Amino acid sequence: MRILLINPNTTAAVTEQAAAHVRQVLHRRLIPAEIVPVTGRFGARYIASRAAAAIAGHAALDALAANVAGCDAVYLACFGDPGLLALKEVSPVPVVGMAEGALHLACTRGRRIGIVTGGVLWKPMLTEFVAMLGLTERLAGIRTVAPTGGEIARDPDAALGRLAAACRDCAEIDGADVVVLGGAALAGLAERVQPQVAVPVICSVEAGARAVIATAGLAGARPALPPTESVGLSEDLARMLSADR
Amino acid sequence: MRILLINPNTTAAVTEQAAAHVRQVLHRRLIPAEIVPVTGRFGARYIASRAAAAIAGHAALDALAANVAGCDAVYLACFGDPGLLALKEVSPVPVVGMAEGALHLACTRGRRIGIVTGGVLWKPMLTEFVAMLGLTERLAGIRTVAPTGGEIARDPDAALGRLAAACRDCAEIDGADVVVLGGAALAGLAERVQPQVAVPVICSVEAGARAVIATAGLAGARPALPPTESVGLSEDLARMLSADR
Amino acid sequence: MRILLINPNTTAAVTEQAAAHVRQVLHRRLIPAEIVPVTGRFGARYIASRAAAAIAGHAALDALAANVAGCDAVYLACFGDPGLLALKEVSPVPVVGMAEGALHLACTRGRRIGIVTGGVLWKPMLTEFVAMLGLTERLAGIRTVAPTGGEIARDPDAALGRLAAACRDCAEIDGADVVVLGGAALAGLAERVQPQVAVPVICSVEAGARAVIATAGLAGARPALPPTESVGLSEDLARMLSADR
Amino acid sequence: MRILLINPNTTAAVTEQAAAHVRQVLHRRLIPAEIVPVTGRFGARYIASRAAAAIAGHAALDALAANVAGCDAVYLACFGDPGLLALKEVSPVPVVGMAEGALHLACTRGRRIGIVTGGVLWKPMLTEFVAMLGLTERLAGIRTVAPTGGEIARDPDAALGRLAAACRDCAEIDGADVVVLGGAALAGLAERVQPQVAVPVICSVEAGARAVIATAGLAGARPALPPTESVGLSEDLARMLSADR
Amino acid sequence: MRILLINPNTTAAVTEQAAAHVRQVLHRRLIPAEIVPVTGRFGARYIASRAAAAIAGHAALDALAANVAGCDAVYLACFGDPGLLALKEVSPVPVVGMAEGALHLACTRGRRIGIVTGGVLWKPMLTEFVAMLGLTERLAGIRTVAPTGGEIARDPDAALGRLAAACRDCAEIDGADVVVLGGAALAGLAERVQPQVAVPVICSVEAGARAVIATAGLAGARPALPPTESVGLSEDLARMLSADR
Amino acid sequence: MRILLINPNTTAAVTEQAAAHVRQVLHRRLIPAEIVPVTGRFGARYIASRAAAAIAGHAALDALAANVAGCDAVYLACFGDPGLLALKEVSPVPVVGMAEGALHLACTRGRRIGIVTGGVLWKPMLTEFVAMLGLTERLAGIRTVAPTGGEIARDPDAALGRLAAACRDCAEIDGADVVVLGGAALAGLAERVQPQVAVPVICSVEAGARAVIATAGLAGARPALPPTESVGLSEDLARMLSADR
Repeated sequence: MRILLINPNTTAAVTEQAAAHVRQVLHRRLIPAEIVPVTGRFGARYIASRAAAAIAGHAALDALAANVAGCDAVYLACFGDPGLLALKEVSPVPVVGMAEGALHLACTRGRRIGIVTGGVLWKPMLTEFVAMLGLTERLAGIRTVAPTGGEIARDPDAALGRLAAACRDCAEIDGADVVVLGGAALAGLAERVQPQVAVPVICSVEAGARAVIATAGLAGARPALPPTESVGLSEDLARMLSADR
Repeated sequence: MRILLINPNTTAAVTEQAAAHVRQVLHRRLIPAEIVPVTGRFGARYIASRAAAAIAGHAALDALAANVAGCDAVYLACFGDPGLLALKEVSPVPVVGMAEGALHLACTRGRRIGIVTGGVLWKPMLTEFVAMLGLTERLAGIRTVAPTGGEIARDPDAALGRLAAACRDCAEIDGADVVVLGGAALAGLAERVQPQVAVPVICSVEAGARAVIATAGLAGARPALPPTESVGLSEDLARMLSADR
Repeated sequence: MRILLINPNTTAAVTEQAAAHVRQVLHRRLIPAEIVPVTGRFGARYIASRAAAAIAGHAALDALAANVAGCDAVYLACFGDPGLLALKEVSPVPVVGMAEGALHLACTRGRRIGIVTGGVLWKPMLTEFVAMLGLTERLAGIRTVAPTGGEIARDPDAALGRLAAACRDCAEIDGADVVVLGGAALAGLAERVQPQVAVPVICSVEAGARAVIATAGLAGARPALPPTESVGLSEDLARMLSADR
Repeated sequence: MRILLINPNTTAAVTEQAAAHVRQVLHRRLIPAEIVPVTGRFGARYIASRAAAAIAGHAALDALAANVAGCDAVYLACFGDPGLLALKEVSPVPVVGMAEGALHLACTRGRRIGIVTGGVLWKPMLTEFVAMLGLTERLAGIRTVAPTGGEIARDPDAALGRLAAACRDCAEIDGADVVVLGGAALAGLAERVQPQVAVPVICSVEAGARAVIATAGLAGARPALPPTESVGLSEDLARMLSADR
Repeated sequence: MRILLINPNTTAAVTEQAAAHVRQVLHRRLIPAEIVPVTGRFGARYIASRAAAAIAGHAALDALAANVAGCDAVYLACFGDPGLLALKEVSPVPVVGMAEGALHLACTRGRRIGIVTGGVLWKPMLTEFVAMLGLTERLAGIRTVAPTGGEIARDPDAALGRLAAACRDCAEIDGADVVVLGGAALAGLAERVQPQVAVPVICSVEAGARAVIATAGLAGARPALPPTESVGLSEDLARMLSADR
Repeated sequence: MRILLINPNTTAAVTEQAAAHVRQVLHRRLIPAEIVPVTGRFGARYIASRAAAAIAGHAALDALAANVAGCDAVYLACFGDPGLLALKEVSPVPVVGMAEGALHLACTRGRRIGIVTGGVLWKPMLTEFVAMLGLTERLAGIRTVAPTGGEIARDPDAALGRLAAACRDCAEIDGADVVVLGGAALAGLAERVQPQVAVPVICSVEAGARAVIATAGLAGARPALPPTESVGLSEDLARMLSADR
């Protein structure tokens, strides 16, 4: 099984960090899958606003078109899943987003889900994303810490205490009985935070990857779309859109 | 008052058609506003899929960054409003989308809103858009006719009968007491369809423009966002994102 | 364009204050519309309870029947909009309520709407009104200050600090990114409060008037109702109900 | 126990019919309660529009103020319950509406509730009423027959077949597992319709009365409202509103 | 009228306490009904977890099958109503649960309902139960005190202060305008708590019983189920399931 | 990895069929997990009513207590998941239900989920189950065919046509873009139905198993419950409930 891991921001170090963590999860679970990591060609260094996310949707499509050939599934590895529905629409293989996959699996571990992530602007965006998934009723609350994912990636030790405190607030104030620690840049921090939190803390990078693997090869294909004529796009993306599948 | 009218698809003829209709509405209502039309630089010729809409969100941001200077408000003139929330976030002046504005005004004319548009793939996209607006309870139903907006624009007479029938079904089957005829390419068809429909039929191009005018200059500015570093974007867009407003 | 401005309470001074503010808005925006103000013939001096609002629904119908002839639109100028749907049902021209219009326009300026008004009993009534509009998902919260609209009208300076504090709480605690300052008696206070609040503050009197103007002449008429026989009503209202339109 | 039965329309024959049916129910169940019937002083002969219902809210308050002294509970005996929340607010004793009481009891008899009544304009009004009660999730559907309540009262035999067919459609098409036959004028028809319907059919007049009796004397009083000054109302109503309770 | 009162936990003292309180209510209201109390044969001594409630659903069915013959209605007398829908499905006479009945009647006394009960694990279970009833919109909040129902029953005086404080918090913080004091073991405490609370406080044992009486004999029977073959159940329950009704 | 597969009905042949299908899925995907199948000790032969499901909740707890030792995860292998939340509460290892797991994975394959199963009484039960999961917005519709799961298991060929037709109706009438074929007894039929359906058809037995595997070992444990005293239960279950974990 080959999984295309798309990081739709433009920082290759984040892509590598997420890919490394997923490979470690696969190895620990004896799952024989290969990860094909790819980074967005254009857009924000780190996605922390609606504008950056909107551009990232285009960048993710661009990355998909150039790299999906030969893959069995696609992991959209940004917590917030920019362009998710568009990728699902045109991809020849199943696509699962990091927040999408992590939240659906979290629903099987607890009744009310808390979300903790870095960057204060993510809260309204994730609120709408959860609503788009139809999971609002399952949401206990979303708490952000001030450092963004990028800042946490550069100095995770400095952020651990604040992340743990936010997770505890999700449990104790918001009533969450499971918390998703969200963000590609937070890969691996869940197990370090867990000892300080009374309810299960889920790593979004791992949970998203588990959801991708669970979905790959499940059921038949979606019907193809009619071809779309375009201008000014990369050759791969233009060809994917115009394909008469 | 100068209004930037952004058509986020890449067909200039649609931009001109929408701008002409808006100018006519303004003239008829004696409103002294100037329309500045702009067409997307890249993306689909006509937007009729999620992938095309995702790319159009980027194209609309790109058009905004290059053209908003000196304008008092922005009219995102595509029914489905690609990139709407991202534009609102970064724009220095109010932004109203065609579907957003038309649907909110329609809510003051009827209790249950019907939507009729061209292109069968729009139905799920508009369903989600209405949910994102929080107006699902007000929605009677969405009906699409097979010809897309582009096809209707090329031969409106051929589509009139089907559009009128869909409007009547909205009223009689779905229980709509007002119908929005949606789409830049359908500008001006509402009044031709009205005589065949028992409930009010609203032209989305006109209603959206009315909402833009109603919103321009209403209340103070939103707080500025922190600057965002990016790569691979147009110079104007990169500058807008990185601006320390 | 002639707009019938109905104040459904029985205090003419409030009617005059609202009409004056609307005329000022129209003048500033160069919109050539005439305001025809009318005050309720019976009911509470100030509407601050469900009973007063129920009676005001009848009074608004009574005022409509007596004064709508020759008007192009109706502005139900009480924040809470007593009798709104009944007026829409029987009126020959479009009717927009102050809260209705202000809230729909506010939705284009922010994702989550806060409401601040005077009189503690309004909170549950407005909660239900927002639900009736179908806008509950867009509501961040409703905050009332102790002085009623009537008391604020008599001494606005004394209330400014409390209104500004309530607006700030809407933004900072409830997460509103736009606040509607609601109430005919609060006409013009939004711009005085704005400098103390980080998010846009909307004047309900102005926003409602803008929504009336945006709606006037938009689309065709609603189907007529069957005539209703009645007893004990004013001659005008009885005639309007029994009309075989 | 004395129950004030308010018919908020202005047709005394409907009041008498409802009162007679309630007395029969009480007698059959050995419940020693007295019915005090009262008819609205002004408004529509039969309530079949939003305007008529808005006026009836005022008329019901007027009737309450003049007649509630010495009563232990109030039965607002019109299916659609005009003015319900306003009456609850000012009444010194519990108030239950016919639709309110019948629907809450129906919820204990079935999972999904169907409503059948006379007069096609009631459907949107009842849809909103059910939403106001918060019972929308429990609603299977609302079906109206063309003859209004008034017409059914004059010739019930002619309407029986259509009412039974509508009840069956509620069960078979809408999935209702209990149906409420709503309307003061339909008192006693449920048992005649029942043999033709596979699911339980509830008489709204009886069920509402049962709910009034179940609620009378249950728990303490609501806090009093501040007094309200008014003009142009009946002496009793003005006194009730201005009372410093 | 004979009412089967099923206590689905396995503590006969709670059954007797609830039955005694219901008999007192009936006597005070001159209602000639007989109470047939029965206690669960297996399961938890006190129900304070999901597992205990799941087992209690089976125990309640078992008790119903053995004792319903000759009864006119069933009162499932545990606040949380384990097995409620299953009992309704197979019972030959109407079944009303304590929480179900109390909450529906409470809806006629206030707009927003607070719930106070003993045992902290009940909060999520009751949240889901209220959602299952479709009454979430009417819920102001649920507050639990640390002592469980069993502990309160053994020393009610010690719990009164905490229960009153929780009721006040429901009113003042959550915005409840009526509070249901829930639990078989709290029978009779509502009237002792009422003087310390500004909004009506409803005794769930009394309100549930009133709802049972209001429902008994209302409308026809539900359609019978197909027979079900089983193994390992009590003879009475197996016979009830296999009955070809 | 050892997975306890609990069939909460009392027909061992269904248990074996489900276990065999899961083993085949694991083998095909090279996942080294062991299945430990167990059948309910008491209750209905086939679960096709609320009463049968309520008893099955107890039977599933009973099976869990007797067999969970040494297992890493629990698969509650009945589509409708009787007792699901109670099992999650007391189990020392993660529990995933067949419908729960299949529906959450289906959400990553389509926007609107259709459900097809055998036995007409399941429709309202599954409607409530989907609501309990919080997935109602994602549900396109539920369609049942007349033969129950038990009957389909005995003669799958006879049911294939009706199942395929129901799947097509889900897609074409209800608007589902993915369909879950639900039921332990329908194991393996999805791939036979798929060629006749235009949208992906998911086998609930396989999808549920994939979700169990995805969840096993994800994140830490839930907090333990306080011990519960009981009477009349199996020794294993009584011990599990009374355990001071």
